[in-house]
Amino acid sequence: MQRSVIREILKVTDSPDIISFAGGLPNPSSFPVGDISESAVKVLRDAGTSALQYSTTEGYRPLREFISRRYWEKQQLRVDPDEIMITNGSQQCLDLLGKVLLDAGDPVLLEKPAYLGAIQAFSAYEVSFSTVTLEDDGPAIDELRTALDERKPKLFYTVPNFQNPSGLSYSAAKREAVGRLCAERPVVLVQDDPYGELRFRGEPLPPLKKYCPQSVLLGSFSKIVAPGMRLGWICAPRQLMDLMVTAKQGVDLHSNYFSQRVVHQHLVDHDLDAHIEKVRALYGRQRDAMVAAIKRYFPADVKSSEPDGGMFLWVKLPEGVSVMELFKVAIARKVAFVPGSAFFVEPDDRHLRLNFSNSDDARIEEGMKRLGAAIHKALGR
Amino acid sequence: MQRSVIREILKVTDSPDIISFAGGLPNPSSFPVGDISESAVKVLRDAGTSALQYSTTEGYRPLREFISRRYWEKQQLRVDPDEIMITNGSQQCLDLLGKVLLDAGDPVLLEKPAYLGAIQAFSAYEVSFSTVTLEDDGPAIDELRTALDERKPKLFYTVPNFQNPSGLSYSAAKREAVGRLCAERPVVLVQDDPYGELRFRGEPLPPLKKYCPQSVLLGSFSKIVAPGMRLGWICAPRQLMDLMVTAKQGVDLHSNYFSQRVVHQHLVDHDLDAHIEKVRALYGRQRDAMVAAIKRYFPADVKSSEPDGGMFLWVKLPEGVSVMELFKVAIARKVAFVPGSAFFVEPDDRHLRLNFSNSDDARIEEGMKRLGAAIHKALGR
Repeated sequence: MQRSVIREILKVTDSPDIISFAGGLPNPSSFPVGDISESAVKVLRDAGTSALQYSTTEGYRPLREFISRRYWEKQQLRVDPDEIMITNGSQQCLDLLGKVLLDAGDPVLLEKPAYLGAIQAFSAYEVSFSTVTLEDDGPAIDELRTALDERKPKLFYTVPNFQNPSGLSYSAAKREAVGRLCAERPVVLVQDDPYGELRFRGEPLPPLKKYCPQSVLLGSFSKIVAPGMRLGWICAPRQLMDLMVTAKQGVDLHSNYFSQRVVHQHLVDHDLDAHIEKVRALYGRQRDAMVAAIKRYFPADVKSSEPDGGMFLWVKLPEGVSVMELFKVAIARKVAFVPGSAFFVEPDDRHLRLNFSNSDDARIEEGMKRLGAAIHKALGR
Repeated sequence: MQRSVIREILKVTDSPDIISFAGGLPNPSSFPVGDISESAVKVLRDAGTSALQYSTTEGYRPLREFISRRYWEKQQLRVDPDEIMITNGSQQCLDLLGKVLLDAGDPVLLEKPAYLGAIQAFSAYEVSFSTVTLEDDGPAIDELRTALDERKPKLFYTVPNFQNPSGLSYSAAKREAVGRLCAERPVVLVQDDPYGELRFRGEPLPPLKKYCPQSVLLGSFSKIVAPGMRLGWICAPRQLMDLMVTAKQGVDLHSNYFSQRVVHQHLVDHDLDAHIEKVRALYGRQRDAMVAAIKRYFPADVKSSEPDGGMFLWVKLPEGVSVMELFKVAIARKVAFVPGSAFFVEPDDRHLRLNFSNSDDARIEEGMKRLGAAIHKALGR
């Protein structure tokens, strides 16, 4: 196993004089600090000894019921609370899926590019990766059908909303096509959805589970409450859920129960929708500022995604320039990003990921100016 | 993988009219609820956005420094903060050790009996278990030497202080013997130490790491602060620690950061030693009450451990009676325990585990009376 490329890069870019778009952090100005404090006090006052005791592996039932109700209200999706387990962030779901489903050499299908954390989690199980090209509106469907039929993957891992790293989303048509293709085959379709609620443009689109009821759906409180609470969840059909619960018992008994109680109290006492609306507005403004800066400062043949939500932009350089070379030039000019190669199981030297959520107007303006200059220099223009 | 025997038993014994000694919970009356509330408010007031953000895989450095200092002060053990990683309870250390060190078929050595959670965690890696008999003062040394040399285990898992399930501790001489035997061989010696601070009789004895510097030491805040905070730690030499950190990155990025900050604040602002003294006094009284009740109510040929600390008693029945039969008789008389077979990889029908920490005088008196009557009945006396 290799140490995460991103974490190593973050060390280089941690210097305070560097403007870094390399991280993948929510904006801390959006954290409901005071509300969480109020909720923590209330939980400890009203149920302190219970909130500090050991608990069940599945997680705090009222929190699972909240998640279940929200799926129904927001996405008209029926998920029974018994089909939901609380985890240490949604990242833990990937490890548990690996533990339960994957043996060495098993074929696993990823998007191209793919979320780095999924590559890391599944790599630990020594699986054999293949990928399906992510087009502007989702996976290339013919390529997906061929991959499913020829590679027979045990698992297909997807991020249909505002993917990390690309910011791209699946269209309504591709959601249906992907869901139906997988529903007809023995593959376990996994939709990871940490960013779905962070939509600042357009209308929400249905989850893949609508078209593939046996599929797995992952969620997270990291982007809609706070990542330090380290709570995510998995929705899985009963039979798979039983295996996941048994695996989690051996792994860490249960997720942090104090956090579960505090987050649940927070959700009961405060208006999550109003909070998310503020986060959306903030990230939407920062996304607009970054897209505008690209138009101002980058050469016209540098392409960028223009996402409707999430936290990332995905930039493609013209031929003739190496991203790793650009990275060095950029660091010398005190601006940082993540080289796209971190998100591919194949070689890549054309892409870079930019984070816009954890920034502000002044840093976006100055940082993108520096990055534009670095790209011009790397291109020899 | 099998669903945990203990969890299934806990379901049967959850009924409110049953007096259960089956659990393994700390006494919630000992949780510092008010202090934790104060610490949570302070952390969120002084460092809220930071405490709710993503953090490093290794864990909050001041918390690791606290642990490092405490090892020096209490056990004259030098452990650098860089050799400590914070985990989701010490249970997660077992899974991460499995992930990093163990492949299918690898030989793993356990104590006989052994902690059930370790059997579960390592079983997921499809290892081959062997065991060394736990005598009243620790492992049978000749048996251990033979097992190390003939089985060549990759890992030897030990709980030298007030073991779960047996309550037994290694003597000073056996600590030295076990440490030295392992130091001379390529085995990874693991000392799990969740109960070491819960000593209510006698003097602390040195950790195995004193005699085997390359060994791994696990710790937990579950019994000295509160299990709901879900925080433990691993101390490992640098090279192994690097692998553990990489593995944890893929597994869940990092442990709950809010909890880490709150527990650290709690440790800085409150007197941990004074708190532990209260827990020790409480558990010591309950242990005495249970030992006295055994002498009053159990047949004289039923043997029990008389531990100097921890949370458990270990009872051995005379020949001619089945623990599983006794369990049914006991449940009919509204008292519960854990059959010892849960703690063996070999068959066992002679032992039972009794928990005394999460009880009180009245329940101990009445519950042990019922259990004594059940034993008499099962023995046909």
